Amino acid sequence: MHIDKLGEFGLIKRIARHIRTDASVIKGSGDDCAVIKFDRSHYLLLTCDMIVAGVDFKPDDKPYLIGRKALAISISDIAACAGWPRYALVSIAMPKSTSVGLVDKICKGILDLAKEFRVNIVGGDISLAQKLTLNVSVVGIVEKKNLVLRDGARRGDIIFVSGCLGDSILGKHLRFSPRIKEARFLVKNFKINSMIDISDGLTQDLGHILEESKVGGIIYADLIPRSRPATSLENALYAGEDFELLFTLPIKEARRLMARKPKIFHPIGHITERKLGLRLVDKNCREKIIKPRGYKHF
Amino acid sequence: MHIDKLGEFGLIKRIARHIRTDASVIKGSGDDCAVIKFDRSHYLLLTCDMIVAGVDFKPDDKPYLIGRKALAISISDIAACAGWPRYALVSIAMPKSTSVGLVDKICKGILDLAKEFRVNIVGGDISLAQKLTLNVSVVGIVEKKNLVLRDGARRGDIIFVSGCLGDSILGKHLRFSPRIKEARFLVKNFKINSMIDISDGLTQDLGHILEESKVGGIIYADLIPRSRPATSLENALYAGEDFELLFTLPIKEARRLMARKPKIFHPIGHITERKLGLRLVDKNCREKIIKPRGYKHF
Repeated sequence: MHIDKLGEFGLIKRIARHIRTDASVIKGSGDDCAVIKFDRSHYLLLTCDMIVAGVDFKPDDKPYLIGRKALAISISDIAACAGWPRYALVSIAMPKSTSVGLVDKICKGILDLAKEFRVNIVGGDISLAQKLTLNVSVVGIVEKKNLVLRDGARRGDIIFVSGCLGDSILGKHLRFSPRIKEARFLVKNFKINSMIDISDGLTQDLGHILEESKVGGIIYADLIPRSRPATSLENALYAGEDFELLFTLPIKEARRLMARKPKIFHPIGHITERKLGLRLVDKNCREKIIKPRGYKHF
Repeated sequence: MHIDKLGEFGLIKRIARHIRTDASVIKGSGDDCAVIKFDRSHYLLLTCDMIVAGVDFKPDDKPYLIGRKALAISISDIAACAGWPRYALVSIAMPKSTSVGLVDKICKGILDLAKEFRVNIVGGDISLAQKLTLNVSVVGIVEKKNLVLRDGARRGDIIFVSGCLGDSILGKHLRFSPRIKEARFLVKNFKINSMIDISDGLTQDLGHILEESKVGGIIYADLIPRSRPATSLENALYAGEDFELLFTLPIKEARRLMARKPKIFHPIGHITERKLGLRLVDKNCREKIIKPRGYKHF
């Protein structure tokens, strides 16, 4: 059997079955970051992402933006757990014929974003490959009391997103700003029950929250923020790499959040009981069960 | 200009020039691991390695051993800094047509070694690539007092290696056991001034110690341990991926170490002043200056 028959998430589950971790691991694979005991009041967060030319970016995308993206997606994982990034390791594999100028631009993209988010680039590795391949691992920190995972959504929670969806196809996946500041604002001021970054697509990632939290959810098509009328609902629901925060909080907390008239946080639905699954209310107020889906590598 | 004109180490230096780190980073890129402040008595160690099919292993090498190697080389970096490994993140990119059985074997190779060295596999990432590509990042810990870097070699130090060299070509690079136990034994019982793991080749990696420590060194061809008479001196000096420890310690400490009649630690030379460079004494007692060289990706 080939891996594409099992699917990306099927394969991850298959691998994860065999993994055993010790008591210092609060959360292993299966969330945006691994969560590790650190000191009395903080956890370490660990995450990594690999991007490959022709798969996760186009070979002719701007090298500066490719480098930037490689780091940004891992910072976004740290944001999803409400922490802040501290250290990064960068591995690059590329053809021998790669120009030094191109490498300079990739590195500048990484270093500029690292500076903006105060990430220390502390090491890396270089190898050869036919296609440009980048792997970034990030170590972050979060206060124990502020950690948010995928598994805390409760019935009655309101579901929010942190910005417009469906723009990845317009290049947002190369230019987005990881939502560290926004996530920190949320956990410092509100009781956030669950959070994830939208990397696979709204319904896929909401599906992760529902599955881990053992709940159901209803979202309203008319409430899903889109940057332009031309952005299709299809893209907003199913296209990956918006890298916005998707989070849930109790209705009382949601009212407090809304009272601040936040520009970027949009309520899009609420959490229901598990047996109701994931439902979409369309613009004609018709409710239907939908299947979580989104971007998968295979 | 293409990167192969600049060379792997030239490229790394070029990139490293632009990196700034904050006061929590004791040592950034340029050693086997990054060293980060952790608690009153420990540092965190961070390292990553990427391996690519057709470059760092043969496509028809046993998948179990490929997975094992991906983790082993990063554990070896932790050993070189005298720490112990705790957590690992694993990224895999591979063709859609990869069989699930092959992935199972790669994972078993990783997990068996992780179990042996008590490493928690806490997360990872999956992407597509034409060639199987693995990146492993490892977080380790070391007592502040036991940290050893490349830059501490002193004139008069004796240079040791932890085992036979030149066997990488026989498959050692796929089967070696990272020298964690040996490195821990050394730092707990002796004053080790500098250490590195031999990943690029003896002279290349000794060259790193000499350069970072601003010293010179003499090694004796007859003292370089080889597993079989057939193993060429050339391979022992210049071939990469033996993953043995290369370390230096003051002569008094070296005498104490030798008094224990250690089976695996072999003295191969001593540290001299910088201006003498790196020298090899051949079997006819002729001393000549040699250039550090070894495996480079380009």
